[in-house]
Amino acid sequence: MEQQHCGTSPIVGFRFSLHPMSDRFIDIIKGALHETDTSRVWMHTDDVSTVIRGKQPHVFNVAKALTLHAAKTGEHVALSGTFSAGCPGDTEGDVYLKADDELQNTDDRNQYVSSQFALYPMNNPDYMAIIYREVDRAKARGVFNDSMHYASGIHGDIHDVFAFYEKAFTHARSSRFPHLVMTVSMSLNSPSHGGQ
Amino acid sequence: MEQQHCGTSPIVGFRFSLHPMSDRFIDIIKGALHETDTSRVWMHTDDVSTVIRGKQPHVFNVAKALTLHAAKTGEHVALSGTFSAGCPGDTEGDVYLKADDELQNTDDRNQYVSSQFALYPMNNPDYMAIIYREVDRAKARGVFNDSMHYASGIHGDIHDVFAFYEKAFTHARSSRFPHLVMTVSMSLNSPSHGGQ
Repeated sequence: MEQQHCGTSPIVGFRFSLHPMSDRFIDIIKGALHETDTSRVWMHTDDVSTVIRGKQPHVFNVAKALTLHAAKTGEHVALSGTFSAGCPGDTEGDVYLKADDELQNTDDRNQYVSSQFALYPMNNPDYMAIIYREVDRAKARGVFNDSMHYASGIHGDIHDVFAFYEKAFTHARSSRFPHLVMTVSMSLNSPSHGGQ
Repeated sequence: MEQQHCGTSPIVGFRFSLHPMSDRFIDIIKGALHETDTSRVWMHTDDVSTVIRGKQPHVFNVAKALTLHAAKTGEHVALSGTFSAGCPGDTEGDVYLKADDELQNTDDRNQYVSSQFALYPMNNPDYMAIIYREVDRAKARGVFNDSMHYASGIHGDIHDVFAFYEKAFTHARSSRFPHLVMTVSMSLNSPSHGGQ
């Protein structure tokens, strides 16, 4: 939260934690990092979370790839994180905005994801209308699961789920209201998912 | 995100996931729920997260107790969640506002927590000033750890950490701008914490 300019920067960031519910959690996290091409994003890990920053398509691509690689171990894994763009306190540093646009992670295997998200368009008097519009978009795309307090449920194949999240994150911010936050919690290979 | 009134409701909610990085994750979660007195909050669990709602002191008390009980197993556990109040889309349902104020969970054992938080005062033009004020409060209380992109690090004994979070959540909302969101990620018994 450095006190600096920005607001119109194209930097997108994702601060997240990947949680394998397994004694092998270290190996699973390290394995996912090893198998994911993170060369197009800036990345830093501390004792609580990891942050990736860069062009939006690469940020979503890396987030999905890490999740998919962790899930293919078959273990129950969870991803919790916050996508951010346009924060007035953001800095121009730590970005990889000159990377080309070609996505580096192209594993297209299927993986069921149950998730929940919330949109927080900052300093925008019409923010509730924006939230409802993106929930309607989820319904139209067939990934809407359920309404609930403080969030909306999104589920389906991981590629459809991430495609929806990237679309919602694009449409919920504007040049007039550039600061957008989106929280996401995902559950994969949960015993609660039964035959999914 | 039901489309209803509110905004002045005293309901506080916390939607969270508790993630034990252990093959015994189901037993640890069930054990924490069993040992925590949740009688003063409304609670609902689905396949991704759990939500508790009620008077603010009980919501924070239950959140801390669940975390503490899970951590005392010695396993590496993580808590990710979002505190919310004053959402214009909130409903009056599913609340326990008539509960008396006596806190039900009083386990005062010490437990080191490393965590990160972000405040999102909604629809408030002065939101950045509010965020910086609460970060300054963390510094004054001795729980501030580090600055970082999109969040601030808070650490120390679990009781000090939760006391700070409840204080920040109280001070960052007002009758004029009642809708406040606070995300929190906590790590306990992490191998990264070394001798803490």
